[in-house]
Amino acid sequence: MQLRNARADNEYPGAQYGAVLHCALLGNNQGEIVLPTKSPLAPLATPELPNIAGITLRVANARYRNWDRCDLTYIEFAAGTSAAGVLTQSKCPSNEVEWCREALRGGRARGLVVNAGNSNAFTGARGREAVDLILSLTSDHLHCARDEIFVSSTGVIGVPLPKDKAEAGLKAAFNALPCGWEEVARAIMTTDTFAKLATTTAALDGKTVRLCGFIKGSGMIAPDMATMLGYIFTDAKVDAGLLQVMLTRATQKTFNCITVDSDTSTSDTVLAFATGQSDGRELRTLDDAGADEFQTALNDICQQLAHLVVRDGEGASKFIEVAVTGATTDESAKVIALSIANSPLVKTAIAGEDANWGRVVMAVGKAGEPADRDKLMISFGGITVARDGVVVPDYDETPVAAHLKGSEINIAVNIGLGDGKATVWTCDLTHGYISINADYRS
Amino acid sequence: MQLRNARADNEYPGAQYGAVLHCALLGNNQGEIVLPTKSPLAPLATPELPNIAGITLRVANARYRNWDRCDLTYIEFAAGTSAAGVLTQSKCPSNEVEWCREALRGGRARGLVVNAGNSNAFTGARGREAVDLILSLTSDHLHCARDEIFVSSTGVIGVPLPKDKAEAGLKAAFNALPCGWEEVARAIMTTDTFAKLATTTAALDGKTVRLCGFIKGSGMIAPDMATMLGYIFTDAKVDAGLLQVMLTRATQKTFNCITVDSDTSTSDTVLAFATGQSDGRELRTLDDAGADEFQTALNDICQQLAHLVVRDGEGASKFIEVAVTGATTDESAKVIALSIANSPLVKTAIAGEDANWGRVVMAVGKAGEPADRDKLMISFGGITVARDGVVVPDYDETPVAAHLKGSEINIAVNIGLGDGKATVWTCDLTHGYISINADYRS
Repeated sequence: MQLRNARADNEYPGAQYGAVLHCALLGNNQGEIVLPTKSPLAPLATPELPNIAGITLRVANARYRNWDRCDLTYIEFAAGTSAAGVLTQSKCPSNEVEWCREALRGGRARGLVVNAGNSNAFTGARGREAVDLILSLTSDHLHCARDEIFVSSTGVIGVPLPKDKAEAGLKAAFNALPCGWEEVARAIMTTDTFAKLATTTAALDGKTVRLCGFIKGSGMIAPDMATMLGYIFTDAKVDAGLLQVMLTRATQKTFNCITVDSDTSTSDTVLAFATGQSDGRELRTLDDAGADEFQTALNDICQQLAHLVVRDGEGASKFIEVAVTGATTDESAKVIALSIANSPLVKTAIAGEDANWGRVVMAVGKAGEPADRDKLMISFGGITVARDGVVVPDYDETPVAAHLKGSEINIAVNIGLGDGKATVWTCDLTHGYISINADYRS
Repeated sequence: MQLRNARADNEYPGAQYGAVLHCALLGNNQGEIVLPTKSPLAPLATPELPNIAGITLRVANARYRNWDRCDLTYIEFAAGTSAAGVLTQSKCPSNEVEWCREALRGGRARGLVVNAGNSNAFTGARGREAVDLILSLTSDHLHCARDEIFVSSTGVIGVPLPKDKAEAGLKAAFNALPCGWEEVARAIMTTDTFAKLATTTAALDGKTVRLCGFIKGSGMIAPDMATMLGYIFTDAKVDAGLLQVMLTRATQKTFNCITVDSDTSTSDTVLAFATGQSDGRELRTLDDAGADEFQTALNDICQQLAHLVVRDGEGASKFIEVAVTGATTDESAKVIALSIANSPLVKTAIAGEDANWGRVVMAVGKAGEPADRDKLMISFGGITVARDGVVVPDYDETPVAAHLKGSEINIAVNIGLGDGKATVWTCDLTHGYISINADYRS
């Protein structure tokens, strides 16, 4: 199957952006949808993910866009699978997000359906009918309750998901042969330039449990939500309520600590499913033996997935870590770190390989959190450039400039007031972002 | 005098950005500082401003940068001039901002000094010494108190303002012939591409009073402060306390309602001076006859100046008005309007002449303010594109596309919940912004 690609949640109804955009970038102006260039920050290899007992993966082509690729993902879970999720805090969420919020009350999952190419957001009653149809078809197929089925959609805003395509695609998926993790990771992509997969393990009671996950996201990425669509799977036995607590904790330090463009999507969703097919006792509380190990593994896979989204940020050429210490509280440190990570002037400075610490001072100052100009310390790549409110004596830009020529950038700021700390991740702001979002339209 | 131009508050010490940037844009790669292209949104003509009794304008070249233009502005006020001001809320303000905050307690002005090319921000004790020197020289020259002298600086962050250049420049200004409004408006420019001047009048007690103002600003422009450097002058007799109240009111609806890039400068300052040289009684309270008329005129000149900054936004090709109605409160409407105006995806859509109302929905949703997806109404250029949470029936993009091809764009959103309303102004996000802030460095 040749990978072809379209646009994310933020598109105008009917505009075949993906086509025009990527063709134009590749010099093909015929409107055909072709593969965009892979992000220079993509991992060198796609990781091999193990099977998770109790999970069966399938994909199909529902033709939500005029393309030759799979765009409908259907995943079956064994009976007894726990579910947890974090969803966008947007006040204008998609129908799918509203449904997931309702279904999560039950904490049980038997099926997951993900549509790519159409977000079904801002589509009123007709959009809700499409979700209802998917729930009916899938719960009938699995002989389960409707609230054991989870649905997500990603793509253009404002066009109701076509029911005929959803029905045909879903029935094709029911009958398809099972596939692997990479196929499902590819089937949920929109503007993404590479499939994003992660895996890790945890030892519980001397038994190893596996965690696998995949995610999509490239633009319209900002924190304080569960960014874009991400799915995590484990064979661990975890109570649904505990899984929710652990996922929320992990999200605060991972998905909610990344930003590409400060824009929050209407459809952001992260769901976690635990099939309980591994040996060992069920985790029921944070105090249970193995809970710490599982939380660590969950944090690990969430961070891996979150970083992959930043590495595919629209137009990104640099992966940037912003670490703030010495703030009055951890919350204050996070506000300051995000103020730096979201600043267009800081992000363009990094794109220009410019150790512009004046712009970092500006971003600290505008954050509105406690800060004392004359106590600030700023470093790039571990090299201190400013201390006590002024540039360091005999500042030598050479090693800093060398750091900035790389693709992995570190900005560290010590506020000098307390013990609060936070780390967030972002990418630079380049001509690529403008090209993707402004230059090309049908 | 040939106008030449340099960079704003956000620059790295020593980097001759302006030079490299603008030369590159103009095809001259020799590092010489030359005039950048004028914003396509600049007014066709610079307005003629009348003299204001009690005010004398002078400029000089302090050579804060290696350029052949005036960069030091010195303005004398008649005894009895009232002063008011609004200053950046940055937690890392410049020394000049801290001084103005102190001097405003007295509410009296005899002199104003503005340095362009060096913001003197984040310069510690050495920066404060330069401000002290300017205060001493000017108060000695005018035989007045130090707190009757106001000082601003704009340009690179992190380089102490050189005291020798400030002293020589100031002494040259003391001895220079008086000049006109356009010369002072040009002398405070950094990345600005045109001189920004405005004037209006108000009838108080049957007597006409005049208001004149000038401003600079192009990048690092965001609301909730008094954006960049702006100065307003009137011959009205206005008590300093009342002038402060009126200026703060005007700022909330004008300077604090514009954004270029969501980045708040360390040096933002707007000062207003009333010489009281006109005939008529002094305005002392908001209830005095003529107070409403003066407030209206003050709002008018503040809005003119604020719009001029947006029209010179870095890389701007479209002037965008975002009007939000139907929010639960005016404050809520303003948060939503700014969420739209600061969204990189909305701003790039406008740059691409794309009526992408899905991105407007996204920006409403992420604002965090009360909103109901299914009650939203969105229009571009007065043409409704979405109503009750869905695209309008038989939506015809043709007239909307025609509106978006123009340079004056209107986005209106009715939240459908209450009577709260707010209007803010911004510009689009283009390759020009990236070029100015990332592409070129020495």
